[in-house]
Amino acid sequence: MLPHADDAITRDGKALILAYDHGLEHGPVDFEPNPDTADPEAVWDLATHDAVSAFAVQKGIAEAYYPSYSDDVSLLAKLNGTSNMWMGEPDSAVNWSAEYAADLGADAIGFTLYGGSNYEVEMAEEFREAQETAREHDMGVVMWSYPRGQGMKNDTAADTIAYAARQGLELGADIAKVKYPGSGEAMAQACEMAAPTKVVMSGGSKTDDAAFLSTVESAISNGAAGLAVGRNVFQRENPIEILDALEAVIYDGKTAKEAIELTGDAALADD
Amino acid sequence: MLPHADDAITRDGKALILAYDHGLEHGPVDFEPNPDTADPEAVWDLATHDAVSAFAVQKGIAEAYYPSYSDDVSLLAKLNGTSNMWMGEPDSAVNWSAEYAADLGADAIGFTLYGGSNYEVEMAEEFREAQETAREHDMGVVMWSYPRGQGMKNDTAADTIAYAARQGLELGADIAKVKYPGSGEAMAQACEMAAPTKVVMSGGSKTDDAAFLSTVESAISNGAAGLAVGRNVFQRENPIEILDALEAVIYDGKTAKEAIELTGDAALADD
Amino acid sequence: MLPHADDAITRDGKALILAYDHGLEHGPVDFEPNPDTADPEAVWDLATHDAVSAFAVQKGIAEAYYPSYSDDVSLLAKLNGTSNMWMGEPDSAVNWSAEYAADLGADAIGFTLYGGSNYEVEMAEEFREAQETAREHDMGVVMWSYPRGQGMKNDTAADTIAYAARQGLELGADIAKVKYPGSGEAMAQACEMAAPTKVVMSGGSKTDDAAFLSTVESAISNGAAGLAVGRNVFQRENPIEILDALEAVIYDGKTAKEAIELTGDAALADD
Amino acid sequence: MLPHADDAITRDGKALILAYDHGLEHGPVDFEPNPDTADPEAVWDLATHDAVSAFAVQKGIAEAYYPSYSDDVSLLAKLNGTSNMWMGEPDSAVNWSAEYAADLGADAIGFTLYGGSNYEVEMAEEFREAQETAREHDMGVVMWSYPRGQGMKNDTAADTIAYAARQGLELGADIAKVKYPGSGEAMAQACEMAAPTKVVMSGGSKTDDAAFLSTVESAISNGAAGLAVGRNVFQRENPIEILDALEAVIYDGKTAKEAIELTGDAALADD
Amino acid sequence: MLPHADDAITRDGKALILAYDHGLEHGPVDFEPNPDTADPEAVWDLATHDAVSAFAVQKGIAEAYYPSYSDDVSLLAKLNGTSNMWMGEPDSAVNWSAEYAADLGADAIGFTLYGGSNYEVEMAEEFREAQETAREHDMGVVMWSYPRGQGMKNDTAADTIAYAARQGLELGADIAKVKYPGSGEAMAQACEMAAPTKVVMSGGSKTDDAAFLSTVESAISNGAAGLAVGRNVFQRENPIEILDALEAVIYDGKTAKEAIELTGDAALADD
Repeated sequence: MLPHADDAITRDGKALILAYDHGLEHGPVDFEPNPDTADPEAVWDLATHDAVSAFAVQKGIAEAYYPSYSDDVSLLAKLNGTSNMWMGEPDSAVNWSAEYAADLGADAIGFTLYGGSNYEVEMAEEFREAQETAREHDMGVVMWSYPRGQGMKNDTAADTIAYAARQGLELGADIAKVKYPGSGEAMAQACEMAAPTKVVMSGGSKTDDAAFLSTVESAISNGAAGLAVGRNVFQRENPIEILDALEAVIYDGKTAKEAIELTGDAALADD
Repeated sequence: MLPHADDAITRDGKALILAYDHGLEHGPVDFEPNPDTADPEAVWDLATHDAVSAFAVQKGIAEAYYPSYSDDVSLLAKLNGTSNMWMGEPDSAVNWSAEYAADLGADAIGFTLYGGSNYEVEMAEEFREAQETAREHDMGVVMWSYPRGQGMKNDTAADTIAYAARQGLELGADIAKVKYPGSGEAMAQACEMAAPTKVVMSGGSKTDDAAFLSTVESAISNGAAGLAVGRNVFQRENPIEILDALEAVIYDGKTAKEAIELTGDAALADD
Repeated sequence: MLPHADDAITRDGKALILAYDHGLEHGPVDFEPNPDTADPEAVWDLATHDAVSAFAVQKGIAEAYYPSYSDDVSLLAKLNGTSNMWMGEPDSAVNWSAEYAADLGADAIGFTLYGGSNYEVEMAEEFREAQETAREHDMGVVMWSYPRGQGMKNDTAADTIAYAARQGLELGADIAKVKYPGSGEAMAQACEMAAPTKVVMSGGSKTDDAAFLSTVESAISNGAAGLAVGRNVFQRENPIEILDALEAVIYDGKTAKEAIELTGDAALADD
Repeated sequence: MLPHADDAITRDGKALILAYDHGLEHGPVDFEPNPDTADPEAVWDLATHDAVSAFAVQKGIAEAYYPSYSDDVSLLAKLNGTSNMWMGEPDSAVNWSAEYAADLGADAIGFTLYGGSNYEVEMAEEFREAQETAREHDMGVVMWSYPRGQGMKNDTAADTIAYAARQGLELGADIAKVKYPGSGEAMAQACEMAAPTKVVMSGGSKTDDAAFLSTVESAISNGAAGLAVGRNVFQRENPIEILDALEAVIYDGKTAKEAIELTGDAALADD
Repeated sequence: MLPHADDAITRDGKALILAYDHGLEHGPVDFEPNPDTADPEAVWDLATHDAVSAFAVQKGIAEAYYPSYSDDVSLLAKLNGTSNMWMGEPDSAVNWSAEYAADLGADAIGFTLYGGSNYEVEMAEEFREAQETAREHDMGVVMWSYPRGQGMKNDTAADTIAYAARQGLELGADIAKVKYPGSGEAMAQACEMAAPTKVVMSGGSKTDDAAFLSTVESAISNGAAGLAVGRNVFQRENPIEILDALEAVIYDGKTAKEAIELTGDAALADD
């Protein structure tokens, strides 16, 4: 964790990371609710929204589009990832070297660690190499810290998420992305364990607007620096409005209710 | 996926990749229908046909013949491959480094990924290294994206092929070679998922002319950029004519029927 | 083992290593007795105590705080470590390269070896690389020499600890950190086996003051160069006082009883 | 396969490779028929025979003797090999780097590939590295192409040998060494599959002179470029005479019978 | 095997290697017969005896003491080794890089190969790298050639030891250290198989003086170049006298009986 290393992917110390690696991790099924989003251009356009402090994609999608969006989007190079056809213990291929990400102009790298998996040690060592290379190139480091596999019974238990956040700090992440541990109190514990490492909550599968914004509000008010979100934005019919609302909650300290009112979108309120 | 990286192995954005690595992948049995094709020279000669935008071979066959054909053939260096004596989970040895392919003058690299295999993670990481080296040397990147192994029940299901095409995009291929998913609609879905990455249909085992051309027509009219073909050309008695016909379908937008008529070959029509 | 290589992390040839990698190795549970210690800053402040000859932390915690403490704290870069979510044979990921530790200004590296684990050979080879890199950068080398795993029945048996200490010497550690083998005689044996390699006793889980100091006294009087301690300092309500007392025992040759009297802390005596 | 890369180890395009790595592969037992041959010098002397176009040895035997024979012997550095104490799936340790072979002055490298073994993929990748390094140093490349292991039922079946020969071509060998597939016709098929890659027949265990020469004649007349032989030369009492006879068959196109007559050795005829 | 590469660790072509890596390989138990020998200094002093042509130690013991003994002792850097807590198939961690050994001023490297172990291939490849690096730095190469593991029924059978000695030659060792195969005849066979590679007999566990010297005499008179010995020297009460006697047997061609008489040590004769 290096102070200010994440400046290029945060805004006033807060973060809204738009993630779009679902085509690799989950496959085409994630584009079904909103078929246009299979086209990366549609989501790159969303990423230009002021609320988005960084856009997380795999290498191929960065190669193809980032040169056209480099003035408007901060690139978070998601270095590892694996299809869900993979049937072994949780693991993630390193699909992108940190050097090449730097060459492409990435502002930060993203890396998944499956704590508790039978590949935890190997993934931690791959993270080491990526993290240290990121430092050479002044890129920030975001860890997707997701305990999973083998004997992991409850991967969103408060203790597990707190441990995951702490792994982010100890191993050298500037930002740790963790699942929402079910309560504001548990999120506060995770943030406390991460200490100077910022914690962002993972958006998860799509929920209704009010519930989603309310969870984000809870996370923010309990110390989270923001949100990393994919489906809860691009699977909606109103992605711009939800980004407006998230901007209000994350950067302006509004409540979910205020944000819905401010964005003046009946659809959001009634969804 | 890098725009224009595949220019040297496409023609007006379309591709007909002649593949000739069957001696390694399947063994001598593939030359039995047309014994002369065991001699690489015979197939290199076919590769000079105007319809062929790239010729995919393993290292040894490139070393021996490419210097004599470099003016007339675009070389697609198929970097990995394994004999069918291999009895483990689907895997493919990296037989050729991307650096050496560049030294030999290759225009692009080809690489197989078996999504869903117990070797998927390892192969994806080998692909990473090859892909990034290809970028250093301005070579295009073609992925043979073939889900296979373990629990993969149907490797030509529409969802599987769409996922395979998307893997090509996400991991950084300029062209994804996938099996024909059984219908034009399914091929359209795959092309949509690949977005800017071009999709070429794999020729597969030999079928009759009309059926084969009709499948190619279906693929092209549903968004495929072309075809990667081996046995359906070199196992025929009339390889030149089928290349003529494929040229008409792929580059000139002719129907299968028109192509057969245009090439004026009774043999093709009646095969 | 290189004479004087540990000068920067010892004081008159004695050592009190304050270790603070529990957030990775054990998780948040270790901060529960004293919740403020989840904040690394609180423990970095403890590390400025004169008694502390080196502070052992993982990479992320060094990156974030060491620049502010480099005048007052000697940095012992704990290179490997793993969460206790890991369920395989004892192993430890190399989370930090020795080069990067040197770049950050570390005075020494720390490395765990699980002798007897199914990963012993692999860990020893990782240690080799770290140790030799440490030599290039004039950093000292501390081995956490912890036989563990498979058929290891008693990991604090006198013979086991003596063997562990010897491994430290043979493989090139300047200091070997071992568990207390249950008696002063056994500790003497371990020190004899380590010969010029210094032996420090591992603090272990928290015990009461008198018992703890008495064990330290026994270790010191039987040849140990000092102590590596975490929980027995930072989980206490009186960490400063226990550091004062440890200073008396380790550097001044006081008995546990004298140390308690000297530090004039009733709480210590009565704990 | 690179035209002319094997010039230094062939004579008029033909090859007689004397192999002497039996001390590693089979152990001392292979020297029992002719105990003097345990002394490498005795076999180096045989290698100076005009019939021998290359001498294949492991590193230690090259280091010790090649400097004294470099004017008279072409060195074929057999890079991998394993003792028969090894009880795992067929595998072969890389005992010699291609760089070091080049430093010693080797004219070519030799490398075993066990197609079908559970180590096929790993061995093919080790071959890649050796082959490409050989190209950097203008050394020829000979593959000992030996399908073996797991489900391989008949490792001298015609189809298997033809496949083995083809692997040599596809992977970049200039010469493929294969077992005799039992008939001239089958050997012709293997040579056809290897196309420009030369095929040499493996000598195998010792047989009587007439039978041995007759098999060699059959191989040569069916397209083989020559022979790689060890025991059938050095286990004989008359190694010079058999080399004379082999020279007649391989380079001068004599029949086995003519060769026996030409060499005028009653022992050969009556053996 | 490179002629003269072992000059620095032999004397007139003969060798008495004093080995002292027992603290790693066997643990403290080996020092019990003579507790002072746990202190490396005591054994370094023995290594200055004129009879000792090389002293074999692990890295840590070389780092700590060699600078003080470099004028009087030839350093044989034992690169690999493992504790006997290891319970897997025989394997040995590479604890010391050959480069670092060269930097420390080593005259030669020592390396264990467990032929027949499930790690044989891996160890042979590690040996390759060490051996070739030794050549770059003009260091000699000694192989501890110890068939062991899996199906190895008798690791001192004559055939096994002969094979082990041959492995030393083939793989590039200047000296092969093997166990005594039970008879002078068997030792002669091993020496014949090693050809120019020198064979030294391994001292093994401590036996009485006359028996021990008699075995050494048998080895020497059957072609061995000498002895590698540890416990049979340092576990004795009279290590100087036994070294005197060994000097007579190894370098001066005395019989065991003559040596005992020459050294004039009643203790030796009556032991």
